[in-house]
Amino acid sequence: MNAVTALVSRADALISALRGRVPADRFVTDPDVVASYHHDQAEWAPFAPPLMVVRPKTADEAQAVVQQCALRRIPVVTRGAGTGLSGGANATEGSVVMSMEAMASIKRIDRLERIAVVEPGVVNDHLRAACAEVGLWYPPDPASAPWSTIGGNVATNAGGLCCVKYGVTKDYVLGVQIVTGTGELVRLGRETAKGVAGYDLAGLMVGSEGTLGIITEITVKLRPMQPPQRTVAGYFDSLVDAGRAVAAVAEAGLTPSALELIDRPCLEAVDAWKNMGISTEANVVLLGRTDTPGEVGDREAERMQRCFEDAGATWAATSTDEAEAEALFDARRLAYPAMERLGPVLTEDVCVPKRNVPEMLGRIEEIGRRHDIVIANIAHAGDGNLHPLLITQPGDNAARVRAQAAFDDIIDAALELGGTVTGEHGVGLLKMSGLAKELDPTVLAMHRAVKSALDPWGLLNPGKVF
Amino acid sequence: MNAVTALVSRADALISALRGRVPADRFVTDPDVVASYHHDQAEWAPFAPPLMVVRPKTADEAQAVVQQCALRRIPVVTRGAGTGLSGGANATEGSVVMSMEAMASIKRIDRLERIAVVEPGVVNDHLRAACAEVGLWYPPDPASAPWSTIGGNVATNAGGLCCVKYGVTKDYVLGVQIVTGTGELVRLGRETAKGVAGYDLAGLMVGSEGTLGIITEITVKLRPMQPPQRTVAGYFDSLVDAGRAVAAVAEAGLTPSALELIDRPCLEAVDAWKNMGISTEANVVLLGRTDTPGEVGDREAERMQRCFEDAGATWAATSTDEAEAEALFDARRLAYPAMERLGPVLTEDVCVPKRNVPEMLGRIEEIGRRHDIVIANIAHAGDGNLHPLLITQPGDNAARVRAQAAFDDIIDAALELGGTVTGEHGVGLLKMSGLAKELDPTVLAMHRAVKSALDPWGLLNPGKVF
Repeated sequence: MNAVTALVSRADALISALRGRVPADRFVTDPDVVASYHHDQAEWAPFAPPLMVVRPKTADEAQAVVQQCALRRIPVVTRGAGTGLSGGANATEGSVVMSMEAMASIKRIDRLERIAVVEPGVVNDHLRAACAEVGLWYPPDPASAPWSTIGGNVATNAGGLCCVKYGVTKDYVLGVQIVTGTGELVRLGRETAKGVAGYDLAGLMVGSEGTLGIITEITVKLRPMQPPQRTVAGYFDSLVDAGRAVAAVAEAGLTPSALELIDRPCLEAVDAWKNMGISTEANVVLLGRTDTPGEVGDREAERMQRCFEDAGATWAATSTDEAEAEALFDARRLAYPAMERLGPVLTEDVCVPKRNVPEMLGRIEEIGRRHDIVIANIAHAGDGNLHPLLITQPGDNAARVRAQAAFDDIIDAALELGGTVTGEHGVGLLKMSGLAKELDPTVLAMHRAVKSALDPWGLLNPGKVF
Repeated sequence: MNAVTALVSRADALISALRGRVPADRFVTDPDVVASYHHDQAEWAPFAPPLMVVRPKTADEAQAVVQQCALRRIPVVTRGAGTGLSGGANATEGSVVMSMEAMASIKRIDRLERIAVVEPGVVNDHLRAACAEVGLWYPPDPASAPWSTIGGNVATNAGGLCCVKYGVTKDYVLGVQIVTGTGELVRLGRETAKGVAGYDLAGLMVGSEGTLGIITEITVKLRPMQPPQRTVAGYFDSLVDAGRAVAAVAEAGLTPSALELIDRPCLEAVDAWKNMGISTEANVVLLGRTDTPGEVGDREAERMQRCFEDAGATWAATSTDEAEAEALFDARRLAYPAMERLGPVLTEDVCVPKRNVPEMLGRIEEIGRRHDIVIANIAHAGDGNLHPLLITQPGDNAARVRAQAAFDDIIDAALELGGTVTGEHGVGLLKMSGLAKELDPTVLAMHRAVKSALDPWGLLNPGKVF
């Protein structure tokens, strides 16, 4: 029996064992289709062919799969839409990839309690739209919101544009239902506004990247609809000037509802793709927003514009025209896929203290020059979360080696400036060495202890994070 | 050698072993002084004499104590100001009580990053005052804020009055430094606005009641100063009417910055103590607030007042007079100590979904009648967190038995209505049986696994929580 036959036979045995509990149409074994589940959007991260893909439709099906995998010690790699940028969902040799895309129902939106109960495969924008219908708002808004799922967002503790004022996914998760590494189906957390009954194990699941449990249901907090926003746009000659404007906004005590940075290469890539006719008169564009109602908000917008101007903006203006502003923010959200069209992108996700944003942006430029690598920049600048995009030409292996060196230097610079290696994308595979630099060995040992305690057979997404 | 001599000799041996690292004046062995550290404010929870009390002044001293205790397998019970209401800080036989009161310095308040770094013994109100000096705000405001410490607040994930809009302690903790159960001193979490580098172990410490680590430093997020508030007061004939007003406020989509309930017995007790001249024309008073600026806030206050009136308020009015409103909120904060003056109080802390607040308040009344127990009520009503106070006369043991039965019935009713046994006080000792009812045995097993992983010798606050 050769290797391929052995794999097929293992897959068949698993499917047979699950008969009666998991219908046959949940399994994907066709190699071409399986290949589309090999990796997420972190093109540079390694992956290997899994045994098969399974797309459960219920928590019971997910549990059955884990129970059978546990008996056979087959690792399980869980994924949402595969929009991750760190390789956290990449398949490993002989694993079962569990895709949650078929568990995509919004079970309940409760207006009075301001909570929603959803399956993990619900797309972020779909939840936001459903909430809006009853006057509520689910804030976390990663740029991938039109495609990424709530389950994936929870697994990576996803951030987004409005997080500078409204916090990240963790701030909205009240409870989860999970399948544990030993195949138990349990509920963690609660539905009430407050609760301290035992350890915050629901919170522990957030950002654990599929290594501590497989999320089969999520209860999130909601907010009332966001008030209308004013948008302040500023053009800058240099990244460092724009960075100084970001620090000035923080220094002024303002709380923008978004504060995003996009540089010329990103804007040009979006224009080349979508022909949006976006001005590229500026080397760097900063987009600020405030949603404070009434005159107080008007004054905040004025002060933000003044911060931009004082930091050296070549042009700055405030707009209440939603359509015009949304076009700029659409360009921001499209920047990543637009750059990806141009070649393999290595995406950074460092987060530094706000006062160090100008210094960090300066260092990124210097690192790009030193390694002769084109680095485009988008950033959730308002909370110091920078996404330098390292661009190489397809097939240029020398450039890839240089890009990897630049990537490592950016991580070192962020750590030196009191930052973290990952603000919102997760560790996955790409940031594993960075994490080992960031965390004390004792803290890494605590991670291993918690992992062994909750997943004693090491079945859940092994080889990721640490 | 008799038992007392043996204890003294164990204490002496520990003090000797720590010579050079922990100065002698940090230890308390005088039995009278030690007795003042026997228990927190949960008078009904059991406690036993500890070996001694230690009041470290630095993280290094705290670490040294834990290291020596680990060698000797002596349990360590950590406490802040001892204002807890669940017995979580109660001493256990032969333990070392570690009081963090001498580690009370505010190390840093960073205006630009909006964070504060504090030692655990900093009193909540002191931190709030220091933040206010630079125009910032630390929101979590338990009624014990004039006495309770940030370390204790973190250990119990304390809530408070403004949490209905601004969240609980957990929502503000970015990072902690802790001594682990194996005597390591480590930093968990971060100082940046965002970060997903590894598991949220800092978050896991919040609400773990001293069972997973001894907190020696805390980094918290801050907000800009809260805007001025309008206060809406309403008088009601019955708890159920007031509960209906609470549900109506939620139904109307309002987000009060506080929504507190106080009943007549509490107001009378405060008046008897402080002679505040508070009107007790009402059986139940509801105090709502909104801090939305400008006209939008004015309209919210009007709508809240209408919710009160429609639910059956006998009187309702809106005030912008800060002094008048603060007097009412002071009465709310003083209600618990005022009741305590009258006899042993058994304090409940259930939290139910907002729509079940009227039903739950009705059941509490019925339970009081059925068990012939006086139950006074204060509540963070806006988030469904109720604090029925079960009052007995000193020395009336039959009443204590009836009160315990009523306490258990209240827990059962809260669980039946989709609630939790503890909203913000923690499990400690008083809620251990309640926790066992609330959590699935598998989830309790996960708790035990995490506890063993991080505190393998079981030294940290053993016998509490689960």
